[in-house]
Amino acid sequence: MSLVNRSLVTIDDLSNEEIEAVFSLADEMLNSVNNQSNVCQGKIMASLFFEPSTRTRLSFETAMHRLGGSVISAIDVNATSLAKGESIADMARVVGSYADIIVIRHPWEGAAKIVADYAGVPVINAGDGSHEHPTQTLCDLYTLKKERQTIKGLRIALCGDLKYGRTIHSLIYALTRLGATTFLWPGPGLDMPENVKQKLVTEYGAVVEKIPADNLPLLVGRDDWSGNNSLDAIYITPSHAHQLALIPDISIPIDLVSEYDALYVTRLQQERLVATADGQDLKRDYPVVDRKFLKGKEFKKTLVMHPLPRIDELAHEVDADPRSMYFKQAARGVPIRMALIALLLGAKDVYIPEKESSPAQERAYPLYKRDFGVTCSNSKCVSLQETETRYIKIEFEIITNRPLTLRCVYCEHEVHPQYIASCNWHQGMLKNKKYHRADTHLVRRIKPENLIIFDSESKAQAYGFKPSNYASER
Amino acid sequence: MSLVNRSLVTIDDLSNEEIEAVFSLADEMLNSVNNQSNVCQGKIMASLFFEPSTRTRLSFETAMHRLGGSVISAIDVNATSLAKGESIADMARVVGSYADIIVIRHPWEGAAKIVADYAGVPVINAGDGSHEHPTQTLCDLYTLKKERQTIKGLRIALCGDLKYGRTIHSLIYALTRLGATTFLWPGPGLDMPENVKQKLVTEYGAVVEKIPADNLPLLVGRDDWSGNNSLDAIYITPSHAHQLALIPDISIPIDLVSEYDALYVTRLQQERLVATADGQDLKRDYPVVDRKFLKGKEFKKTLVMHPLPRIDELAHEVDADPRSMYFKQAARGVPIRMALIALLLGAKDVYIPEKESSPAQERAYPLYKRDFGVTCSNSKCVSLQETETRYIKIEFEIITNRPLTLRCVYCEHEVHPQYIASCNWHQGMLKNKKYHRADTHLVRRIKPENLIIFDSESKAQAYGFKPSNYASER
Amino acid sequence: MSLVNRSLVTIDDLSNEEIEAVFSLADEMLNSVNNQSNVCQGKIMASLFFEPSTRTRLSFETAMHRLGGSVISAIDVNATSLAKGESIADMARVVGSYADIIVIRHPWEGAAKIVADYAGVPVINAGDGSHEHPTQTLCDLYTLKKERQTIKGLRIALCGDLKYGRTIHSLIYALTRLGATTFLWPGPGLDMPENVKQKLVTEYGAVVEKIPADNLPLLVGRDDWSGNNSLDAIYITPSHAHQLALIPDISIPIDLVSEYDALYVTRLQQERLVATADGQDLKRDYPVVDRKFLKGKEFKKTLVMHPLPRIDELAHEVDADPRSMYFKQAARGVPIRMALIALLLGAKDVYIPEKESSPAQERAYPLYKRDFGVTCSNSKCVSLQETETRYIKIEFEIITNRPLTLRCVYCEHEVHPQYIASCNWHQGMLKNKKYHRADTHLVRRIKPENLIIFDSESKAQAYGFKPSNYASER
Repeated sequence: MSLVNRSLVTIDDLSNEEIEAVFSLADEMLNSVNNQSNVCQGKIMASLFFEPSTRTRLSFETAMHRLGGSVISAIDVNATSLAKGESIADMARVVGSYADIIVIRHPWEGAAKIVADYAGVPVINAGDGSHEHPTQTLCDLYTLKKERQTIKGLRIALCGDLKYGRTIHSLIYALTRLGATTFLWPGPGLDMPENVKQKLVTEYGAVVEKIPADNLPLLVGRDDWSGNNSLDAIYITPSHAHQLALIPDISIPIDLVSEYDALYVTRLQQERLVATADGQDLKRDYPVVDRKFLKGKEFKKTLVMHPLPRIDELAHEVDADPRSMYFKQAARGVPIRMALIALLLGAKDVYIPEKESSPAQERAYPLYKRDFGVTCSNSKCVSLQETETRYIKIEFEIITNRPLTLRCVYCEHEVHPQYIASCNWHQGMLKNKKYHRADTHLVRRIKPENLIIFDSESKAQAYGFKPSNYASER
Repeated sequence: MSLVNRSLVTIDDLSNEEIEAVFSLADEMLNSVNNQSNVCQGKIMASLFFEPSTRTRLSFETAMHRLGGSVISAIDVNATSLAKGESIADMARVVGSYADIIVIRHPWEGAAKIVADYAGVPVINAGDGSHEHPTQTLCDLYTLKKERQTIKGLRIALCGDLKYGRTIHSLIYALTRLGATTFLWPGPGLDMPENVKQKLVTEYGAVVEKIPADNLPLLVGRDDWSGNNSLDAIYITPSHAHQLALIPDISIPIDLVSEYDALYVTRLQQERLVATADGQDLKRDYPVVDRKFLKGKEFKKTLVMHPLPRIDELAHEVDADPRSMYFKQAARGVPIRMALIALLLGAKDVYIPEKESSPAQERAYPLYKRDFGVTCSNSKCVSLQETETRYIKIEFEIITNRPLTLRCVYCEHEVHPQYIASCNWHQGMLKNKKYHRADTHLVRRIKPENLIIFDSESKAQAYGFKPSNYASER
Repeated sequence: MSLVNRSLVTIDDLSNEEIEAVFSLADEMLNSVNNQSNVCQGKIMASLFFEPSTRTRLSFETAMHRLGGSVISAIDVNATSLAKGESIADMARVVGSYADIIVIRHPWEGAAKIVADYAGVPVINAGDGSHEHPTQTLCDLYTLKKERQTIKGLRIALCGDLKYGRTIHSLIYALTRLGATTFLWPGPGLDMPENVKQKLVTEYGAVVEKIPADNLPLLVGRDDWSGNNSLDAIYITPSHAHQLALIPDISIPIDLVSEYDALYVTRLQQERLVATADGQDLKRDYPVVDRKFLKGKEFKKTLVMHPLPRIDELAHEVDADPRSMYFKQAARGVPIRMALIALLLGAKDVYIPEKESSPAQERAYPLYKRDFGVTCSNSKCVSLQETETRYIKIEFEIITNRPLTLRCVYCEHEVHPQYIASCNWHQGMLKNKKYHRADTHLVRRIKPENLIIFDSESKAQAYGFKPSNYASER
């Protein structure tokens, strides 16, 4: 396997072995940052940032300059032709004819996939809405690796905004795949989205255990953590690495009180909240990690990590503490991105062993593609945006049919549509053109390639389908 | 002739031979893009974009990087000292003392000329309002040349917004000069401006034939093209190359039904429209080129071109069609701009034959320069802007005096002022200080250097002139 | 002394000898601009501009490119993570882990010092609010040096907005230190701030003489200068170089009518004015330097300087005058910044003689540091901003105690707090915990390290202090 000419849209685009390969080249880059200045000479990186960012963009641009390459950049949605109503696909094709590699950040979820599909050059996702931000995950994993030598078996707590924090989503997939045990400590109302948890279970074989907050020794006496009694901790462990922990009984106190290898703190993604009183509440009740918080003996050797920028959730007084890792994380972003860029451009080569079996990489779901019918229910999904509907084909993976569950191939949100039909059964006879409830047994009798799916009866009827006898029964 | 240290403000700044020279160097650049990385080493290009743009700016910056040069850029009017009230001339002088070459895009028409006048280094106009965008024209011509080997004799239809589209204006001058026949298919209300048509006739010797829409075989049955019956097609042919076509009778059906070499589609320049219901109408009735449109046999081998970005006027379904050229056009912008930059900086040299006679290049009109009197009537003209009136001298070419027609040297709009006077005739005697109607025979008796021109009687009187006996007669 | 790895936050960070060293390397750069392209190869400059700027940013970026280095830049506060509530210190630490040198412009006064404190790499202040802009001063001084060979003994008039113009503040310190005599001609209401004048007297040994406007031969008959009769000229001379001029009598007409070596014109810093009718008045009465103004024989050989951008205060008609220096000033910004960057990065070396005694450099005031009590009274000071109070410790220099005068270490504004206490005297007995008026003799009896200072009685009481018997007496 080689990384040349490939794109990195989600962290799952890299196998465990490829992640290790990036790390090994990053080590080489780190040790001789100043000797790399001809590796990518003559190459151009396009840095397209359609959302505010300093750190990620400057980190990528630094990486490219350290490799001897050049950078062209567009950094504000108002200063670009997107403001003139151009599609992402057009932009990708044009910029792909200028640059050798593209780095894209965009508010629409799935936008990076579109760029990768159309650019004709390697594309790196630098964050697409609340979807993924895989290079941040590489920096996080690299820091864990440098500090603990391995990721397998580590105990890592994720704390704060687990709902909107895209860094968190990419990270938890990778941690699970690489064999770490993860503890979720969401801020009130900021729980990990269901589809992420679902994917961890069905595709990474994780076991999810839910433990009521008052059972958690960890949180006893921490009224400052949250005044909200409904706070739970969620315990996720990969079935692969931790088979022994998969005991049927939930109370595993010995695990819950032992030390954490890392505490990963995130800020409230305020820019993704609707501006309401709610936002104010979320802000007020948001957990804060400070010197007092870190006094617990379970944190004695815990690496304190944060993707930055921080606001109030991680006190400045922690900065001088040797456990603080966040500035190291940021600094390591440069060698990681140097390694990644060099590999995708074929400017450097590393040995990558044959891929071991990885459930997430091998599973292939049947695809659902139609010009009409069900659409993604995520309003931030790129497939729903006016400029993109001109060319994008609706496309879903059919994850399961009991209940019928589709995953959007762009933003990876899951939808559960209620009505189905077949393009085979009606045989051109209008009276046979019927739709059915998705929870009837028919969902299993229609071949995937014949399936037509609707999210409402009115849509089905608009396409000339009539309710079947099954439409209202189970 | 050499291009070293010259500027490119309008496409007429290059002779036909010089355009060919740019193409020949572009071929060389295209064939060895990666071997150019030391051609402009140590040189700096300033990229000053005071209007939104991705594609043009990135194309220029890519070109400079591919040549091994560096780029400094200012990309937003709000982030610059223009916001502090600085004049364009000052900015040009200062940036000209930093950079070796300047690329400028500006909303004011004529702004690029000011920059070229003051910078002291070569300046490339990357679009000044609705005036010109000569490098886009070079990319367009280069694509025609690459696909058809020659431009002379090609039949090219220009379609869409011919009123505000600056790319169109530069293009039609060049096509006419280079011997192509052009067909104008404006969207409703978006006709080619009169001054452009006028200039094609008087300076490029073009013959303009106007044919009512219902006489045009081409448009028969194309109700989808426009619901508007007033749509005309305008047929322009250079006298030079197509003398034979200049038959007095207008009906030349054999030409009108034969094939087109290229169809050049443009988007509606919405950002130049005043936000009114009008804008909505223009949008609704705007022509759309799609697969159905292109089925006509006159388009069988037609190159479908577009300067991009597109909105709805060119359907995505055409992208996969081998006739689609627009992404190639965009990609070829890089070698074209590499060639141009290298030539202006003297970093590359090509043989340019002696210039053949070119009407547009040789005609010299008498100039009209005054501190007072008539001003340009184009509100977007750089000469009228508050920050620029501090130093700009009003200056016009006197195109003809029957009727008196002036062309602004900055934005090239034409004005037809009504009143004239002489600075010679009154001999210091106040009673002799009189103004006259511009359509009297006096306009031919006053020497150009003595001419004083007013756009209103009140202005003339404000400067102490009284109406003459001739002021109200012919 | 070496400049390697040092920062330039205020002009006082450079000794007179170091300034000369920068000039000598700038001469070398100027003479071989095109031969420097490997001096900083592989080095990266971060250009962080949180206020609008073209000229300064492009000048720095040009300088870095001319040295063969690379540039990463963030140019708009809305496009950065500051918009997400991040502190300047965090940004500095992260960017400092990417780049080899940082150039920062920021609206908050003292922001550059924070960046220099936290970045871990050399930092250059490119303007922090109305505080300082030391590289502009270097360009100004370099122009004087090039045109007059020396700065010692020059007579220089500063004209216009002396209140908000940060370039003026850095400049006058340097001119005074280097032995020039300065004349202040403020626009009405735009006088030099008191703390700047104070510092010139107390730290640079300058003698400040105030002369009523009607005594000034220079301004006789210049009603166009200002309709405002309250206009004064302020005459500043360094005690060191001009001891003889320090005569007790104020009328020194021979000096006032003799020639000026330079006239330094500045624009009204409108962006720092509150938008009121006041702003309109300031604009209307602002002095204008034009051809007529410069006809006075005292300006016969005067260098006309301006930091640019200009608006109306310096007429374009002066541009062609050989006395105009402002475009030369701008152009010389490049070699000056090349020299400075190369020296701070250790990429070039020049001999710097031992520092002579310099009052400003050697004086060490006692420091006042507390978690509570008096804060800076300048609302633009970085120490008062919400994002920064999380980590910044309040810190002042105690300039004098009669009357008690503190200077903020961040923005250098002076405060005159009214109440003091000691952390020593109350010996834990609550009744002894008292505060006193700052103008009693007690201020000299409390050791600086024990001093507690309050700006109001209510604050003192909020911290548990009670009024002493001295609190209301002197």
